[in-house]
Amino acid sequence: MLRQQLAMFGVEGFIIPRADEQLGEYVPDASARLAWLTGFTGSAGLAIVLQDRAAVFSDGRYTLQLEQEVDGALYERVHSVTTPPATWLGPHAAGQRIGYDPWLMSEAAAARYTEAGVMLVPCENLIDAIWHDRPALPDAIAVPHPIEQAGTDSAAKRMAIGQALRDARQDAAVLTDTASVAWLFNIRGADLPFTPVALGFALIRADGTATLFMDAPKRAGLAEWLGPDVTGVGRAALPGALAALTGQTVRVDNAGSPAWFAQTLRTAGAMVVDGPDPCALPRACKNAAEQTGARAAHLRDGAALCRFLHWLDGAGVGQSESAVADRLRDFRAMDPAFRGESFPAIVGAGPNGAVIHYRAAPGQDRVLARNEVVLIDSGGQYADGTTDVTRTVWTGPDTPPQHLRAPFTQVLRGHIALTTAVFPVGVAGPHLDAFARRPLWEAGLDYDHGTGHGVGAYLSVHEGPASISRAGRIVPLAPGMILSNEPGYYLPEQYGIRLENLLLVQEAREKWLHFDTLTLAPFDQRLLDPALLTTGEAAWLAAYHARVLAEIGPLLDGAALDWLRAACAAPDARTG
Amino acid sequence: MLRQQLAMFGVEGFIIPRADEQLGEYVPDASARLAWLTGFTGSAGLAIVLQDRAAVFSDGRYTLQLEQEVDGALYERVHSVTTPPATWLGPHAAGQRIGYDPWLMSEAAAARYTEAGVMLVPCENLIDAIWHDRPALPDAIAVPHPIEQAGTDSAAKRMAIGQALRDARQDAAVLTDTASVAWLFNIRGADLPFTPVALGFALIRADGTATLFMDAPKRAGLAEWLGPDVTGVGRAALPGALAALTGQTVRVDNAGSPAWFAQTLRTAGAMVVDGPDPCALPRACKNAAEQTGARAAHLRDGAALCRFLHWLDGAGVGQSESAVADRLRDFRAMDPAFRGESFPAIVGAGPNGAVIHYRAAPGQDRVLARNEVVLIDSGGQYADGTTDVTRTVWTGPDTPPQHLRAPFTQVLRGHIALTTAVFPVGVAGPHLDAFARRPLWEAGLDYDHGTGHGVGAYLSVHEGPASISRAGRIVPLAPGMILSNEPGYYLPEQYGIRLENLLLVQEAREKWLHFDTLTLAPFDQRLLDPALLTTGEAAWLAAYHARVLAEIGPLLDGAALDWLRAACAAPDARTG
Repeated sequence: MLRQQLAMFGVEGFIIPRADEQLGEYVPDASARLAWLTGFTGSAGLAIVLQDRAAVFSDGRYTLQLEQEVDGALYERVHSVTTPPATWLGPHAAGQRIGYDPWLMSEAAAARYTEAGVMLVPCENLIDAIWHDRPALPDAIAVPHPIEQAGTDSAAKRMAIGQALRDARQDAAVLTDTASVAWLFNIRGADLPFTPVALGFALIRADGTATLFMDAPKRAGLAEWLGPDVTGVGRAALPGALAALTGQTVRVDNAGSPAWFAQTLRTAGAMVVDGPDPCALPRACKNAAEQTGARAAHLRDGAALCRFLHWLDGAGVGQSESAVADRLRDFRAMDPAFRGESFPAIVGAGPNGAVIHYRAAPGQDRVLARNEVVLIDSGGQYADGTTDVTRTVWTGPDTPPQHLRAPFTQVLRGHIALTTAVFPVGVAGPHLDAFARRPLWEAGLDYDHGTGHGVGAYLSVHEGPASISRAGRIVPLAPGMILSNEPGYYLPEQYGIRLENLLLVQEAREKWLHFDTLTLAPFDQRLLDPALLTTGEAAWLAAYHARVLAEIGPLLDGAALDWLRAACAAPDARTG
Repeated sequence: MLRQQLAMFGVEGFIIPRADEQLGEYVPDASARLAWLTGFTGSAGLAIVLQDRAAVFSDGRYTLQLEQEVDGALYERVHSVTTPPATWLGPHAAGQRIGYDPWLMSEAAAARYTEAGVMLVPCENLIDAIWHDRPALPDAIAVPHPIEQAGTDSAAKRMAIGQALRDARQDAAVLTDTASVAWLFNIRGADLPFTPVALGFALIRADGTATLFMDAPKRAGLAEWLGPDVTGVGRAALPGALAALTGQTVRVDNAGSPAWFAQTLRTAGAMVVDGPDPCALPRACKNAAEQTGARAAHLRDGAALCRFLHWLDGAGVGQSESAVADRLRDFRAMDPAFRGESFPAIVGAGPNGAVIHYRAAPGQDRVLARNEVVLIDSGGQYADGTTDVTRTVWTGPDTPPQHLRAPFTQVLRGHIALTTAVFPVGVAGPHLDAFARRPLWEAGLDYDHGTGHGVGAYLSVHEGPASISRAGRIVPLAPGMILSNEPGYYLPEQYGIRLENLLLVQEAREKWLHFDTLTLAPFDQRLLDPALLTTGEAAWLAAYHARVLAEIGPLLDGAALDWLRAACAAPDARTG
């Protein structure tokens, strides 16, 4: 049926990305076109349908899932790193017109096809024309994010962004990232899983006024909260609003915004300038209220995690991975400020821990056995902050063998080396990534993922623009940024180790920065080989555990408190 | 007179860069247009002349020199980092046509003016029209670089570059870097100070054939050496050769080659593709013969340096900085393979050591005093390799104070941390730079320059594309690269400390790399505080000094050998 559409729309092929119109991490069911067409439900993928062939692309994380979910008789199943879609398409599309929906692809992404010699043509979405039982778009009500948590009111944020646009001699900027819209107007929503945002777009002008493009029911109660300088209109008003910008200079993020925006603005006679989302950097630098919220959320999250770890230590063996994940969520949910998980928890027992993006499926998952390593990566969304923490624990009852304790200790040493870095202003995450790897490198080990990502303030748990990754952009670290520190080591088919705290960038003194650890939960010292630690590392670990006990202890009682005391004691005292 | 020219050439202003047509580090006297016009002789600068004003720009290294050399009544003297030329020019050049010589500026450099709103116009060089006593271009004869040193013959290099062009679907590439021309054809010259190259350009084609554009006297004896697949012609043949490339795809380095090349090719109907100089990466990865040569050159250079350090230890106090530099050159010149210094030696005594690019001028320089720190950064060009080494020594006779020993030791610790790094393939210098800084950062110190630069094989002592610098390009390190490791600490008006060895990138095992130190000379352990070293650092230092004694010792005798034995002894033994 799709192939009949191709001719009707005047193209010889069509590209179906996984993304929706916001180009974000999560996609509502109404926009899950790739899954509807091909069956593939991974978080990164893309399909291309030509008259005589078709393919679905995803990366190495999803090789197995691609085989399971996508019919090999209908689609080639292609590794997107080895053979990027544009590379695959080039030889098959010589002289052909290939359609794409400019709402679902950035200009930077489209350029990769053009550079490979593909003649791309923006067109209506062919899927939408044939998807008759398409679910409705989510209709959750957006709500104010109170000033106690937000710290800065929207008017002040808009004036600052307006000034930045004036400094750049730009009249306006388009905002397409749901997190930027949420941050700028101090609103939160419930349209997407794991991320408290509402679907919508915005236009911010150099004078600090703004237009919020969001369907009316969502913003019904927000008129007063948005104030007189923000106009709320439906998404259908977008083309008209952009058409009115004739002669104006408008910033659009070439790599982060759908191509539709720049194309529509150019057609309207506006001057389009490529530039980063102006909210991304100020959003990343949490203000005092957001930092206070993050600390408070981490304190309660730490208490919930410790109650869970105590439970797991006694009752974990024999539980399924998904039951363990459910139990962890239940411990967090006892907090009235809990708003949901910040991402699907990873509980990987034994060999499943080595699958970096493992997700246990009920009924198909592993039961925790005695004497094995379990990797638990999870986080919560709270009204005052977002958490993300990984601990790797030993189920016991025997002492872990040295071949497990050595890599665990090297991962911890890398974690400590990054945590304790002091550095001048100007240094970016990619310059610090190697600190977390060096102890592993010296043991001949490494991990095939970045060391850290930015984390939002009751927003996305994966937030730009800064990261601690060699592949990341060079964004100098700045006070108030929250970043994860999560080195690991994975032995395929055996076990996975990852140790993750969130770090808050703070000023050490003028023009010098350091990290303050937000996450509070003990590391499983049964897996530690204290002989591999330097004196300084051992001192850091003892001080960290003393802090965990001092801050989390008062929130626990009974057996859980006893467990925490033992977990935070010096390793010699435990093994001795 | 220049201002009369402006109108004659139809422009309202003209840009005079310091660069010549090869856009390299050194400029022959015949091309020193900036110095001729303004008097400024620094190694980085640019002048802009308008009808009603003029300015000379340079960076912070040359602030004082700019004041001394350039007449403030004629020129504004501008800090090029605070106020880049394009930023300065923008407001002054509204609606004006500003001329530039497309032979002296890359398209990337020209684009910075265009982005600042300046209307740039390529035109004839106005200086050349009025510079009547202009010196002749250098006419040194180019000579073969023997296969024993080069390791790979030109035909094999040209076939490999040709293959790279075919892989990129390009028909040819323009070479404008004198070092690439020297490398590709295995020739060396004497047209520039400190760098054994001949002025010239080249065109390499996808079939491995090439044209060398070099004035006839220079290449008179090279016809047989170049072989049948390389055509030698004069530089005057360049426009015609490019005009013949109609319809062909030609690679030009947008940031590294004069704009003239891309402009001329486009006019001729060639398709110009921006891409790096195809020789840069293979040139950086030294082959086995070049590595052997580098080791041999460093052994002899180390012996010369040790003889010098022995002399300095006994006779340095009372000598002028320039006399010390001369003496060091004399020690190197005793080697028959010595071809000259690889850059102007820096001998900075006391406060002069804190001036990072200090160069002593005879008669105006400092005499070495008792009990002060002297920084000595120097290198040699040898037929088999290029060296670059920095040692910081104490003149004595008293024991240095702790406030000097602490930063010296932290600089050394940073040097050791980088030297001992082991890392997987894919890691680039900018990811390792922080290793050399961390011990300083922990003491609240830093240095305002990169940690390391690439070094050529009897070629430029500053060679791309890899570096160990946060500002450097992300070029993964590869076996055979030679890079400097030179952390430092500078206390203005007091002293400078820098400790530099050259490192050779080697395969540690499959897909893992490490460094092998090439430079062999003791560090001045009088300035060391052994109590600040970790056990591992102390062990590295002892092993390095044992290696220096084992390898350099046999090349010395008498008092110099006794001195080396003492200098390489464990610090306790010396102070005890």
